[in-house]
Amino acid sequence: MRIGFIGLGSMGKGMAANLLKAGHQVLVWNRSQGAVETLVKQGAVALKHPGEAFDAEVVISMLADDAVTRSILIDSGALASSKPGLIHLSMATLSVAFIREMVEAHASAGVQLIAAPVFGRNDLAESGMLNIAVAGPQAAIAKVQPLLDVLGQKTWPMGEDPLNAGILKIATNMMLISAIEATGEAMALTQSYGVANTDFVDFITSTLFAAPAYKVYGPKIARRETEGAGFTLRLGLKDVGLALKAGEPNHVPLPFASVLRDNLLDAVALGEGESDLAALGVRAIKRSGQG
Amino acid sequence: MRIGFIGLGSMGKGMAANLLKAGHQVLVWNRSQGAVETLVKQGAVALKHPGEAFDAEVVISMLADDAVTRSILIDSGALASSKPGLIHLSMATLSVAFIREMVEAHASAGVQLIAAPVFGRNDLAESGMLNIAVAGPQAAIAKVQPLLDVLGQKTWPMGEDPLNAGILKIATNMMLISAIEATGEAMALTQSYGVANTDFVDFITSTLFAAPAYKVYGPKIARRETEGAGFTLRLGLKDVGLALKAGEPNHVPLPFASVLRDNLLDAVALGEGESDLAALGVRAIKRSGQG
Amino acid sequence: MRIGFIGLGSMGKGMAANLLKAGHQVLVWNRSQGAVETLVKQGAVALKHPGEAFDAEVVISMLADDAVTRSILIDSGALASSKPGLIHLSMATLSVAFIREMVEAHASAGVQLIAAPVFGRNDLAESGMLNIAVAGPQAAIAKVQPLLDVLGQKTWPMGEDPLNAGILKIATNMMLISAIEATGEAMALTQSYGVANTDFVDFITSTLFAAPAYKVYGPKIARRETEGAGFTLRLGLKDVGLALKAGEPNHVPLPFASVLRDNLLDAVALGEGESDLAALGVRAIKRSGQG
Amino acid sequence: MRIGFIGLGSMGKGMAANLLKAGHQVLVWNRSQGAVETLVKQGAVALKHPGEAFDAEVVISMLADDAVTRSILIDSGALASSKPGLIHLSMATLSVAFIREMVEAHASAGVQLIAAPVFGRNDLAESGMLNIAVAGPQAAIAKVQPLLDVLGQKTWPMGEDPLNAGILKIATNMMLISAIEATGEAMALTQSYGVANTDFVDFITSTLFAAPAYKVYGPKIARRETEGAGFTLRLGLKDVGLALKAGEPNHVPLPFASVLRDNLLDAVALGEGESDLAALGVRAIKRSGQG
Repeated sequence: MRIGFIGLGSMGKGMAANLLKAGHQVLVWNRSQGAVETLVKQGAVALKHPGEAFDAEVVISMLADDAVTRSILIDSGALASSKPGLIHLSMATLSVAFIREMVEAHASAGVQLIAAPVFGRNDLAESGMLNIAVAGPQAAIAKVQPLLDVLGQKTWPMGEDPLNAGILKIATNMMLISAIEATGEAMALTQSYGVANTDFVDFITSTLFAAPAYKVYGPKIARRETEGAGFTLRLGLKDVGLALKAGEPNHVPLPFASVLRDNLLDAVALGEGESDLAALGVRAIKRSGQG
Repeated sequence: MRIGFIGLGSMGKGMAANLLKAGHQVLVWNRSQGAVETLVKQGAVALKHPGEAFDAEVVISMLADDAVTRSILIDSGALASSKPGLIHLSMATLSVAFIREMVEAHASAGVQLIAAPVFGRNDLAESGMLNIAVAGPQAAIAKVQPLLDVLGQKTWPMGEDPLNAGILKIATNMMLISAIEATGEAMALTQSYGVANTDFVDFITSTLFAAPAYKVYGPKIARRETEGAGFTLRLGLKDVGLALKAGEPNHVPLPFASVLRDNLLDAVALGEGESDLAALGVRAIKRSGQG
Repeated sequence: MRIGFIGLGSMGKGMAANLLKAGHQVLVWNRSQGAVETLVKQGAVALKHPGEAFDAEVVISMLADDAVTRSILIDSGALASSKPGLIHLSMATLSVAFIREMVEAHASAGVQLIAAPVFGRNDLAESGMLNIAVAGPQAAIAKVQPLLDVLGQKTWPMGEDPLNAGILKIATNMMLISAIEATGEAMALTQSYGVANTDFVDFITSTLFAAPAYKVYGPKIARRETEGAGFTLRLGLKDVGLALKAGEPNHVPLPFASVLRDNLLDAVALGEGESDLAALGVRAIKRSGQG
Repeated sequence: MRIGFIGLGSMGKGMAANLLKAGHQVLVWNRSQGAVETLVKQGAVALKHPGEAFDAEVVISMLADDAVTRSILIDSGALASSKPGLIHLSMATLSVAFIREMVEAHASAGVQLIAAPVFGRNDLAESGMLNIAVAGPQAAIAKVQPLLDVLGQKTWPMGEDPLNAGILKIATNMMLISAIEATGEAMALTQSYGVANTDFVDFITSTLFAAPAYKVYGPKIARRETEGAGFTLRLGLKDVGLALKAGEPNHVPLPFASVLRDNLLDAVALGEGESDLAALGVRAIKRSGQG
């Protein structure tokens, strides 16, 4: 398939590479050129303007946030100039307000919008083992399913409304960050009675909490590994903000997310914005006066 | 081994039965007689007074809380009258303040105290598949290890100080209740955008949160299954209180536990004290005005 | 002075009337015509388009929120068409982000912007007894001081930057809503031990909390007076949102405001959006299962 | 009147001195002797044992907390040995659980218990300008009213049940500490936009919050005056604990008090336990990374 791919960040470059390996024609665009050159060596075609990607059969976008996505896809005129019937597979984490805005803009442009946010960090993007939630027109989804199968280990259908996939991503990230806070608080408590953090993590991740969320972040908190962030604290703050904002129009109180917001703001104020999200758990320990 | 077993509640009766099946001599005491009779039919010897249990080689206690344990083991004179060298295996969930009190009382009575709180609900107690954290004198632990192997699938050593096993239990329960609140909030959010609760639970328990804590409670919240409580909301409130109280002398802020406390109090005030702990998650959904 | 007055809501109409009484020429515009007619009877001149107000010496705006203010003052072209040197006295409660936007737009249009948010409800607007915080170019403030003296009992200078007056308003409203929550929680607690709510309010408002914030809202909570809202719960939620949003770019954690947000969302979800803000305090009592 | 006075701490010594000045016979007991000697010079009689105070017509106790009061009044045998018909005026801040315990112990001893907690710091104790809430047997209150008139500017009758006066004190302190947190958060927010803390405090304490709670603590927070504590942060933590504990059996959620508890624990963990309670507000500012 002829695919336009916009956004070759830490996730996007691995995903685009997998599409190339699977034999697809991939036209890439990225703001900075380093990642573009790497992919060209692997067989991709470099585009000069993001609008050229909308000349393919499918456009995949994997940009940082609402603002960047709006600027590059909509304000640039790229979407408006796309050929009718094109499918746009939006795979980034976006706000529900912006997804609504996208739904309207795509309807105007005659482009089919599929929201397909991904779950997993860089390593899973590279190995094609992401989980992918997907929502949009069913026929369009059927058409891109082979691409989703290349990118992920499993696709999770969430219906026709792109918002449904979008909110699933937001809610899951909120749960992930909650798990980090809960683990940090539990470690602050057990450490204060002399239990080694690593013993605690071994125990919980072997029993009630034997799941990736805890297995990835528990040991990082225990070992104070907050450098070399895969998922920065600042990004976590952004994601908690997406949850709070999504809840507002629907009047959904989110007391845990509120605690997360305040604790993340505190951590950012203290200079930890670029640390790994595990720093949120470490801060729960520090807040108790423990090292 | 000759074992005194005190407390045949929903957990204790399954545990005592397993010790009998394994060929041990089990002397049982319980406040109400129904469970005693059931176990006598399985080969147990009924005791008239809890103090008689302290004439065995090992006493196992599995009572409801601090107050009941203090009343039956200490205030009754049972502990004081025990023969020197006896091992007491305390398997209930108790406060750190009371474990400290027990440590002193056992030292005075010349009894070896092992804290060995268990993880798992009734079904795991019956099948001998509990997880057991254990802390106390190492020689005593070595002696009771065969019993722990009968009762649980795995023993998790936490050192010499009974407090270490006690705080592990308290912190893990706090994490479990946090997981229920987080799941409820996430469902309130996704439901408000039209995602089916069961779809959401399927997704999270197959991916980032593929762990017992979420697999047990997620579907209960999604299906509003809050009757027939294995773990009541009132008991959850007690356990969150144990965490908050344990944190106080050590100056450990626990903002998630504070939210849990308030939300559990609200639920109890609204008449849900005897509901399953899953009702905490359901309440997160109701708080947003959704059914 | 020749004054354009835009926004004759519950606050604006009393303020405009006072300017007329003080002998000023007042040109009024309002979306709905009822209030316009009332003021015309008192000597005001009715305008057909808000842009005509910008032909006066001073324009006062007192509109509902950011969106309405942007739509009527900026998007309509009114500001852009104003005569150079005009002073705009912005007296509504607006977000810091929008005040920043206004500062830029006014600079482009050559209009002097003064932020002068007011403190007090309708009755104080009518009696000219408002408190007014003011920030902007000092010469412009000096020129409008006679108007501020008509509208308020006292003006509180906050420097040159309109943001300073804006954030003062936002922070004070956050404190007011915090006072309502704190009073509600305290009443829930004392009522549960048999103290009459009115006795409690009499006591606190005669001693430590003998201040308008508590004297206005305390008795309302005690008597469950939540109809006939001067300040609706929905508006309170908006104002707490302004505080949270203002804190975000500066990394200011606001844990009390977060609690307020969740409790207000809950109240709105339960249908109390149009109740008086006192309903927040009443809900604190209801959350404890008390009537 | 012949009065036994137990507890000559920072509040008690001023109160006892006022009773002496008013012409009463005051028999004093205190753990440390410095304050006793000062009062003896003013005409008091020193007692060797607290039990001797119970030989007077009225005993006033003003001790630090539950534990000290229990130890000195009950466990020492003092109360049990008192002469029948004695009135005990308990003026300290105590838990509701302990007040209940006192009610029973006094009934057994035939002593009439009046709870009369005081509001105000040392200076008001010295000048006899305290506010006093009072609850107990009405005839007994009538008899001690002249003493209350010496000690305070006003007495606030709260009925027959000592718990009512006790919970009033607890709830009011919770509100006071909430006011400090709210002020600190508001200052963190306004300071982050460049408003001087002193300008902010001047404004709020002249308008909506023109009340002692804010006038005492607002300027202290603004000027970072946290030394020379009249009311320490550690004592504030104890008082918030009294509110949370009082709410528990009655199922009263207290989300603001929960936030206070966590923030106070954090401050104590960071070494501010002996600072003035104003340090709670200062910490709200520090949490945002501001000095």
